[in-house]
Amino acid sequence: MENIVERMLSGDRRALARMVTLIENEVPAARRYLAELHHHAGRAHIVGVTGAPGAGKSTLVTHLVRELRRRDAKVGVVAIDPTSPFTGGAILGDRIRMMELSGDPQVFIRSMASRGNLGGLAASTRDVVRAMDAAGYNPIIIETVGTGQAEVEVMRTAQSVLVVSAPGMGDDIQAIKAGILEIADIFVVTKADKPGADQTLAELAMLLSLDSTRRLHDKSLPYWRIPVLKTAAIKDQGIPQVIDAMQQHYDYLVESGMLANRAQRQVRSEIQALVLHAVVNALKAKTTDDEWQKLVEDVTSRERDPYSVASELEERIGLRLPS
Amino acid sequence: MENIVERMLSGDRRALARMVTLIENEVPAARRYLAELHHHAGRAHIVGVTGAPGAGKSTLVTHLVRELRRRDAKVGVVAIDPTSPFTGGAILGDRIRMMELSGDPQVFIRSMASRGNLGGLAASTRDVVRAMDAAGYNPIIIETVGTGQAEVEVMRTAQSVLVVSAPGMGDDIQAIKAGILEIADIFVVTKADKPGADQTLAELAMLLSLDSTRRLHDKSLPYWRIPVLKTAAIKDQGIPQVIDAMQQHYDYLVESGMLANRAQRQVRSEIQALVLHAVVNALKAKTTDDEWQKLVEDVTSRERDPYSVASELEERIGLRLPS
Repeated sequence: MENIVERMLSGDRRALARMVTLIENEVPAARRYLAELHHHAGRAHIVGVTGAPGAGKSTLVTHLVRELRRRDAKVGVVAIDPTSPFTGGAILGDRIRMMELSGDPQVFIRSMASRGNLGGLAASTRDVVRAMDAAGYNPIIIETVGTGQAEVEVMRTAQSVLVVSAPGMGDDIQAIKAGILEIADIFVVTKADKPGADQTLAELAMLLSLDSTRRLHDKSLPYWRIPVLKTAAIKDQGIPQVIDAMQQHYDYLVESGMLANRAQRQVRSEIQALVLHAVVNALKAKTTDDEWQKLVEDVTSRERDPYSVASELEERIGLRLPS
Repeated sequence: MENIVERMLSGDRRALARMVTLIENEVPAARRYLAELHHHAGRAHIVGVTGAPGAGKSTLVTHLVRELRRRDAKVGVVAIDPTSPFTGGAILGDRIRMMELSGDPQVFIRSMASRGNLGGLAASTRDVVRAMDAAGYNPIIIETVGTGQAEVEVMRTAQSVLVVSAPGMGDDIQAIKAGILEIADIFVVTKADKPGADQTLAELAMLLSLDSTRRLHDKSLPYWRIPVLKTAAIKDQGIPQVIDAMQQHYDYLVESGMLANRAQRQVRSEIQALVLHAVVNALKAKTTDDEWQKLVEDVTSRERDPYSVASELEERIGLRLPS
């Protein structure tokens, strides 16, 4: 059992690849390995990269990895692929380009599909990051299309979040406004050599000035001034500045004590998620499909109410309720 | 105990208002009342209205309610107010206008704040709708700003979802693309007398043609052709057509068997959510804040791993795991 863990810790990439597969397939043994790996993790800076389809995330990540390699880092990448028929094709091309990096033994890239349930993807991503972290990869970049609920969940694993926009996609400013702004630590405007880059930068600056006001009022938060950076990845411009900003944000998290705070919040929600996952499994094990169907039909036909059915199931799985 | 339920069922609005407050405050007794009310609910058509801030949702809802009153319906409205500092102000004005309707004894309007946790708001909304339904309101309209995770959760309670856009907000097409498209049953373009209305209609038509292709390929879904309707609420134009489309969608749901299907899915997820909620309560009751803090710190400092802590907590709440 310890064999795969020991091989991973000694730098065996195939052992890591196998572990990731065990995690993705939710093999029960993975949990024992992960418990062991947890003691060796906690050194990596975990960076999320998100933004609308077409913003140039994969290209940016490819260039970031190259620059990190120049700085001699051992880099991990988890790329979440959406299964949407609208965006699938466009992303595939970029992904192939990114995969070319994986010939480098100091780069570990893993692509994960976002099918499956919400909590499932976030949990798998967290565990894959844990495995890469224990194996000495640092930083670890998580790339997602920042639109769905599942992807926002995934971003919670990241310590620093880069939100990527491209000029001429004014359309996605609204989307940013809607939710991504709240999770952004660094903004990157890609394709800065294209027309419209200045307008995108100006729009972001305006949004950020609104947000700054909010943050300055919230005295409980130490203040991080969100930088807006320009890159032209094709020309390799601005990439070192993004890496520097990532490092500065990490330093800020450490010095402000927020890294420790966030880690505690994440651990708490992970423990709760693990217990709830066990409850869902217990429910499945104690209730056959036919029984479920009968219970659901009884409630739908209003012969029974959902509250009494829930109480019955709580008893069945042994739950000791507060008296 | 039955008093409040009986008064509600006999049409007492103050009893209903009190029940809604009990639900919002998560008073334990509410669950007993709701179990009783469940047997009287199931008649209302539940309609969700969502869209970006500024799309004119509240104005549209106000006009829909007036038209429904002309048709002699007894109408319920649940308005979810976001707590975001960005949108709060803009919505308030519309909301006041909507509240003027509540002088009518055949209209019941309740505003709910979207603070609090994700699952909590969706559960409260579902229960408030259940109470209004049992009290004979039909249809019941749920209005949310369709951007956050919490709001998308809330929309699952609706049987028919109207997505509202306004001209000159091309920006939100991207947001629609991103996630709202998948939950839309009817599109409404408001302010159709303003410039740019035709462009917004054309953009939606293009998105829908993409979506139609997807739906036609999925043979498991009966086909509903999503209508795109124009309204100019100020002039009261297009409102009867929206009400007609709502009715047609309801008829389609009934005839295709999808209403029953959706109801079963919702009941199943409600029962699971109730059990998980009980688990969270049991965890709270069996673990003091200090104990939680200690467990979290042990995991954060990597003295312990999250999996063994989760197992310990599972034992503590009595969970019988599948062997």
